[in-house]
Amino acid sequence: MLNNIRIILVATTHPGNIGAAARAMKAMKLARLYLVRPKMFPHVDATARAAGADDILATAKVTKSLEEALSGCHLVVGASARTRDLPLSIVTPHQAANKVIETIQKVNSEVAIVFGRESSGLTNEELQLCHYHLHIPTNPDFSSLNLAAAVQVVVYEIMQVYLQTNSAEATILPSKDYDTPATFEEMQLFYAHLQQALIDIGYLNSDNPRKLMPRLRRLFNRIHLEHLEVNILRGVLAAIQMNNDKK
Amino acid sequence: MLNNIRIILVATTHPGNIGAAARAMKAMKLARLYLVRPKMFPHVDATARAAGADDILATAKVTKSLEEALSGCHLVVGASARTRDLPLSIVTPHQAANKVIETIQKVNSEVAIVFGRESSGLTNEELQLCHYHLHIPTNPDFSSLNLAAAVQVVVYEIMQVYLQTNSAEATILPSKDYDTPATFEEMQLFYAHLQQALIDIGYLNSDNPRKLMPRLRRLFNRIHLEHLEVNILRGVLAAIQMNNDKK
Repeated sequence: MLNNIRIILVATTHPGNIGAAARAMKAMKLARLYLVRPKMFPHVDATARAAGADDILATAKVTKSLEEALSGCHLVVGASARTRDLPLSIVTPHQAANKVIETIQKVNSEVAIVFGRESSGLTNEELQLCHYHLHIPTNPDFSSLNLAAAVQVVVYEIMQVYLQTNSAEATILPSKDYDTPATFEEMQLFYAHLQQALIDIGYLNSDNPRKLMPRLRRLFNRIHLEHLEVNILRGVLAAIQMNNDKK
Repeated sequence: MLNNIRIILVATTHPGNIGAAARAMKAMKLARLYLVRPKMFPHVDATARAAGADDILATAKVTKSLEEALSGCHLVVGASARTRDLPLSIVTPHQAANKVIETIQKVNSEVAIVFGRESSGLTNEELQLCHYHLHIPTNPDFSSLNLAAAVQVVVYEIMQVYLQTNSAEATILPSKDYDTPATFEEMQLFYAHLQQALIDIGYLNSDNPRKLMPRLRRLFNRIHLEHLEVNILRGVLAAIQMNNDKK
């Protein structure tokens, strides 16, 4: 079950933080580390700080984009200390851990928790790929958590929720009227289709897109669309486009 | 209130861990660091890893014995990964945080949380000075938490309990840009508009509607659409209809 969880570090600058994150993960029984464009990896500092969690580093997947690392995921949580103009639903580490464990229990799906750069965290575009914005409550005058410390807090909460629900795990069966959630890829294709349809009907001007697509992403990511629902919506989009072609 | 809490590190070997612990403390509004016989302090590695929590290092008290650091304390919690022959009451970080906050609230007393050496933790003699044995639940096959990571987990739990019991002082992220939720009437008008647009483009057949509208209602009701979002979606619907009329 914990093996359905990916920890994704985006553009990490200090390899020591990668090692410390791997150690934090292993101590909390997590194993799947993804590194999006790490500045230096593999690196002796990563291995030193991993302190025995070398296997996590050895099996870490290095990717060129966050999208690639998210491939196949049904739930994506982005950790960020900063507020945004178009806020996602904000969750505490404990709430995020509950959502992660619940999602895996319901449909055995893949989930990801994404951490940004040491200096500047996640970009708006990266955060818009997420369903939830995880925020660790901190001192308002000094909100600077070390990257590996933030990972430690989050994986600790996941372990706590896992331990609390673990005894009941065997008895929980997937509910029949609950369709599988859409995957990350399905959602990306849906957003591309939505954007094209809006351009076709002249509602979205690609030269002046305003914040329309970020707003729509935020809206539909809040819904957590199911597989069938994406198909229905894409059917609507196809009908809009077909209708448009007839003109 | 949080100022009644001492974090005590005993015989720390790596000064970097002292700095990282100071940073973890400051991010969670704790300020009182005690160092019992640190191997190297002050040290450039401590300052580097403190990353702005230098004030915690500058005011840290260095003592020759744990007893000296505990002087005046009413509650002492010792963090240790190992079990003992003469076990104390074992508490999780969350339980320990509850005891700490309760104790301070009741009698405004001084409390301490004690962390041992990187290599071997606390001795039996040191742990026997404590009221409780704090144990962070970890992977039984890899229970090795970094010292600063253990401090981070514990001060994080203290902050959570503190925030829950002091809602007035809570530093929950301001949700500055959340728009007002749509009213029931707005949603009814939205669904009527959606239905009409789907009929106009020939996607919904009013003689054979299947379950399309109930499915779309279920989908959009899962999130609480905001006022502005309803306007955006109705703008899209109007564009679809206008486009259709041009045929």
